[in-house]
Amino acid sequence: MKLYGMSDSGNSYKPRLLMAKLGIPFEHVETSSRDGTTRKPEFLARNPNGRVPVLELDDGRFIWESNAILLYLAEGTRFLPTDRYQRALVHQWLFFEQYSHEPYVAVRRAILRYPERAAQRTPERMAATLEGGNKALGVMERQLAETPFLVGSALTVADISLYAYTHDAHNGGFDLGAFPAVSAWLARVEGDAGHVPMLPG
Amino acid sequence: MKLYGMSDSGNSYKPRLLMAKLGIPFEHVETSSRDGTTRKPEFLARNPNGRVPVLELDDGRFIWESNAILLYLAEGTRFLPTDRYQRALVHQWLFFEQYSHEPYVAVRRAILRYPERAAQRTPERMAATLEGGNKALGVMERQLAETPFLVGSALTVADISLYAYTHDAHNGGFDLGAFPAVSAWLARVEGDAGHVPMLPG
Repeated sequence: MKLYGMSDSGNSYKPRLLMAKLGIPFEHVETSSRDGTTRKPEFLARNPNGRVPVLELDDGRFIWESNAILLYLAEGTRFLPTDRYQRALVHQWLFFEQYSHEPYVAVRRAILRYPERAAQRTPERMAATLEGGNKALGVMERQLAETPFLVGSALTVADISLYAYTHDAHNGGFDLGAFPAVSAWLARVEGDAGHVPMLPG
Repeated sequence: MKLYGMSDSGNSYKPRLLMAKLGIPFEHVETSSRDGTTRKPEFLARNPNGRVPVLELDDGRFIWESNAILLYLAEGTRFLPTDRYQRALVHQWLFFEQYSHEPYVAVRRAILRYPERAAQRTPERMAATLEGGNKALGVMERQLAETPFLVGSALTVADISLYAYTHDAHNGGFDLGAFPAVSAWLARVEGDAGHVPMLPG
């Protein structure tokens, strides 16, 4: 399989981390969303929405959306429960991640980190993303004060998905010291077998 | 089952439409996200993220996130394929809906429709949501020019999810005349057995 992804992207890190844990070999194809590569026709043929990551299966078919890729790869493994309700909770947290967490925690990090986004560092934007991100972290804190992982006692793809940008939230100017259950959970995720960091070294 | 939802919300319409099609009886509990109800402690006990819809199962357990509710209800029905790759495509479109479609198409509609959001009708916001929404509709157009439904020849929960705000996009100031395949698909979704409109009457 081939994974088109950007090394510095948390969304691209999600399937990399899961494939490392599952021992699935794959070819990483570095694909930047910052230099126009994802808006070129040859990339749009893989994902018409022009985003990474994209998984290319061995038969040449594609799957896009990081959390859809996680669910595909996790099927039949310890990272996805078989119980119908538990599985619904995994889905619930994955949609929460894309709607209520990533647009604040990840976007604030990108605005602060990438020089081409400097014009977006307005007081209004920085305040709105801080507020939204802290709200999302508060929702996680409430759950993780009750259960070791987001969906009970075992790590699932919901944890892998939310780990990707939460573990790097300090680069978005978030203070995880205010979220002790989230901080303890980050360490639990990192202690799970087969963990690899987002960036080498 | 109980469904906490707001009648005028496309996100709340999604599970209502699916349950109507499946013939599942449920109690609708009108719950406004506009009057503060979803931010009260008794509602946050159901969904700590303070959003509708929320599904309450007969045993008192909750599921939130509209698309997670759709997947839960669709399990074992004609609205969710059993093939692993086809199912991944359903997930892909559901995540696309929440990240790349709803924040533009639905948000522009809400800004234009709800008086309490009038201050958000700035030229920048209106332009950004128009551009994002048209981009999302273009991604759908590309797929629907090739297949009758988003994931091939049969209607799935991906279609129900994306129908919810797309069919009402004109109220967000979008011109669906520019998207003929999307327009033809709307009619196909409405022609599927058991269809009910978002609002009575």
